[in-house]
Amino acid sequence: MRYLLAPDSFKESADATEVALAMQRGIVASDPCAQTRLLPLSDGGEGLTLALVNATNGSLRTAQAHDALGRPITATYGFLGPQPGTKQLRTAVIELAAASGIELIAPDERRATLASTFGTGELIMDAIGAGADRIVLGLGGSATTDGGSGLARACGFRFLDAHGSDIPEGGGALNQLDHIAAQDADARAASIPIIMASDVTNPLHGSNGAAQIFGPQKGASPSQVRELDSALTAFADAIGRLNGRDVQDAPGAGAAGGSGAGLLGLFNAHAVPGIDLVLELVHGEEGCDWADIVITGEGSIDGQTSHGKVPSGIARLARSCGKPTIAVGGTIKLSADERKDLRSAGIVATFAIAPGAATLPTLLADARANIESTCFSIAGLVSAVSASKSGEITDPHDATL
Amino acid sequence: MRYLLAPDSFKESADATEVALAMQRGIVASDPCAQTRLLPLSDGGEGLTLALVNATNGSLRTAQAHDALGRPITATYGFLGPQPGTKQLRTAVIELAAASGIELIAPDERRATLASTFGTGELIMDAIGAGADRIVLGLGGSATTDGGSGLARACGFRFLDAHGSDIPEGGGALNQLDHIAAQDADARAASIPIIMASDVTNPLHGSNGAAQIFGPQKGASPSQVRELDSALTAFADAIGRLNGRDVQDAPGAGAAGGSGAGLLGLFNAHAVPGIDLVLELVHGEEGCDWADIVITGEGSIDGQTSHGKVPSGIARLARSCGKPTIAVGGTIKLSADERKDLRSAGIVATFAIAPGAATLPTLLADARANIESTCFSIAGLVSAVSASKSGEITDPHDATL
Repeated sequence: MRYLLAPDSFKESADATEVALAMQRGIVASDPCAQTRLLPLSDGGEGLTLALVNATNGSLRTAQAHDALGRPITATYGFLGPQPGTKQLRTAVIELAAASGIELIAPDERRATLASTFGTGELIMDAIGAGADRIVLGLGGSATTDGGSGLARACGFRFLDAHGSDIPEGGGALNQLDHIAAQDADARAASIPIIMASDVTNPLHGSNGAAQIFGPQKGASPSQVRELDSALTAFADAIGRLNGRDVQDAPGAGAAGGSGAGLLGLFNAHAVPGIDLVLELVHGEEGCDWADIVITGEGSIDGQTSHGKVPSGIARLARSCGKPTIAVGGTIKLSADERKDLRSAGIVATFAIAPGAATLPTLLADARANIESTCFSIAGLVSAVSASKSGEITDPHDATL
Repeated sequence: MRYLLAPDSFKESADATEVALAMQRGIVASDPCAQTRLLPLSDGGEGLTLALVNATNGSLRTAQAHDALGRPITATYGFLGPQPGTKQLRTAVIELAAASGIELIAPDERRATLASTFGTGELIMDAIGAGADRIVLGLGGSATTDGGSGLARACGFRFLDAHGSDIPEGGGALNQLDHIAAQDADARAASIPIIMASDVTNPLHGSNGAAQIFGPQKGASPSQVRELDSALTAFADAIGRLNGRDVQDAPGAGAAGGSGAGLLGLFNAHAVPGIDLVLELVHGEEGCDWADIVITGEGSIDGQTSHGKVPSGIARLARSCGKPTIAVGGTIKLSADERKDLRSAGIVATFAIAPGAATLPTLLADARANIESTCFSIAGLVSAVSASKSGEITDPHDATL
C-alpha cells in the first residue's frame, strides 16, 4: 500500500514536516510493508517557504530587513530547487509574514496605522539581487494595513504629498498621499513576475475591505479602521492616476492589509489560490498518481476546510487521480452538511487525534504522538479491508515473520 | 458492505444498544448501501441482562426483592428468547448487581460487613417460580462480601452458630458460623444449572481474596477487611464440612464478594468468562460469519481491553471467522505493546471519538454524536479502500443518485 502523506502544519504544535513524519511512524509501525512519501504542504500562509523548499530540494536564505515597526531583524526566505520544464526560472519564495508579520510584534506593541511592509520589499530586493527571476509571495499573517506601499517604497517607489515630500511610512499616512512616483523604482522589481499565494477575496477598501475586516485583529481601533479605510481609498486613487490600473476589486487586492492591491497596482503580480499554487510547485499530481491513498491533516478541520485549505486542495487533486484522501485533525467541528462537503471534495474520512478528555495545551503537546497512533489505526484498517477484498484478513505484521 | 455492530456500553453515557444505534446512524449516513446488524454486548458486568434479552428477543421481568442493606426494592432481570437447539431450556439472566449492587447504596450508607446478597437469592427463587430451568448470573458490581451466603439463605440454606441459632446476615457475621444446614434448601434452587459470568480469578480469601482486593472499594476499613477475610475463611471451612467441596481457589470463587464460592459450594454452578458466555448465547459467530467487518467499542480502551473485555472477545471470534474488527472508544490509552496485543486479538484499528479538546462531562454527554461521526468516517474509509481494490474510487452517495 502506497501512502502520500500531505498535511498542513498543526498550528502551535507541529510544522507540516513534523506532522508528515509522525504519520509515517504510525503507518510503518502498523504496516511494515507500506510505502510512504512525504509531501508537507501549506495553503500559502504559515509554512509556505518550508513546504516549497523541502518539496523541491531548494534552499533557505536569510537577509537583513526590518519588521513592521521598522526594527532591524534577520528574516528567512527560500529558493525553490530546479523545476523540471522551467529550468530557466530561479524562483524565490517569500512569506510576507517573515518580515512584516504580526507574530513578530508583541500584542501591546502593535500599531495598526504605523505598521509597514517595507521589510518585505527588502526581501524582494534581496531575492532579486541573489538572482531570482520569479517570486512566490505568501500573503497572510501581516501586521500591516499599508496597501503594500512599504514594500513598494523599499523597491524604489516614492509616495509623495501635495508638496512633493515623502509621506511617512504606515497605512495611516496614506491619507496624505497625493501621487506615486515610479521613476526611481527598481526596474527588475517592477517587472519580475510575482505570484501571490492568497485566498482572500476581499476588496481593498469599503465595508468588506482590508481595514474594516482585518484591521481590528491588527490592533486598529474603530476610528483607526476608518482612518485606514480612507487611506486605502486614497492609495487606490493614486495608483489609478499613476497607471490607470483599478485595483479596488481585483482578486487578492484586500489581502495582507491591502498589499495585494499595491502588488497588483505597481508590480507584475497576479494572485493564485495558495494551495493550488503549492500543489503545482511541489508536483502534487505526481504524488497522487503514485499513491494508493492520501493522508492529509490540519490542526482544525471545520466548515472552512472545504474552501481553499490544504486538506480539500490535496483531496480534490487526489480525487482527480482516482485516489481517496483521509484527513486527521487536532479538532474536528463539522455539521452533517459540512461532512458531506468534505466528502464531495474527496475526503472520505476525518479522524480527530484526541485520545479522550484532554485540555488544549495537552493535545498541542501530544499532537505528534496522537497523529502517530491515529495513523497506526488508519493503516491497520486499510490493510485489513484491502486484504479482505483479496479474500483474506491478514495481520500486516505477519508479513515480516 | 456488511457491518456487525457489537459494542459494549459506554459507561455513564450510553448503553450498548444506544452505542450500536449511533454506530448504525453514522454508517448508513456515510454509505447508504451498507448493511448493518446490531449486536450490543456485555462482558458479564453491567448490561448483561439487556444485551442477552435484546439479542435473543427475550423478555424483561421485575420482582420484589431487597437491596444489600435489606431495603425493599423492585429489581429487573430477564428471560432469554428461544435458543435454537436448546428448546427445552428456559434461561433466566440475572445480574447480581440488580438487587445486591453497590450502585444502589449511596456512598455514605455503604456497610461492607453487613451487606448481603439475599436479594439476589430472591430473584433466583422468582426466576425458578417463573419456570426457569437454567440461570445465567452476572457477577459484578456487588456491594457485598458475604460469600453469597445471603443468596443461599434466600434459597433455604441456613447458617448457624455453635448453639444452632441463625447468625445475622452480612459477611461479618460469618465469623460466628459453625455449620451450614442444607435440609431446608429449595431443591430446585440447589440443582438448577447456574452459569456464572465472571472474569475474576481471585481466590476466596487470603491476600488476593475477595475481602483484601475488593473490600476497600465497598467501604471496608482495614480492620473490617481483616474481619471479612477471616469470615470468608470460616465460610469455606463450613462448606467443606457440609459437602467436601473445596471452594477456596475454584475459578470465580473470589467474584462478587465471594458469591462465586457460595454458588460453587452450595449450588450447581460453574463459572464461564463473561464475554465468551455472552457471545455464545447471542450467536456471535453467526453474526461474524455474516459480516464483512465488525465494529465494537467501549468507554475506555486500555491495556485491560485485550483481557476478557467485549472488544477483544468479539474480535477474537471475528478473527476466527476471517473478519477484521475496528474498535471505537471514549478514551484510548495504549502503549505501543498494548496496541500490538489488540492487533493480535484481531482489532486492526482503534479510534477515539473525542473531536478535540473537551472535558470528560462534555464527552460523556456527546458520546452518541461522536460515535456516529467516527463511524461515518470509518465507513467512508472502508468504502473507499474497498472500491479502490476493485479499481475505482467512488463516493458511496453516488450510488443513491
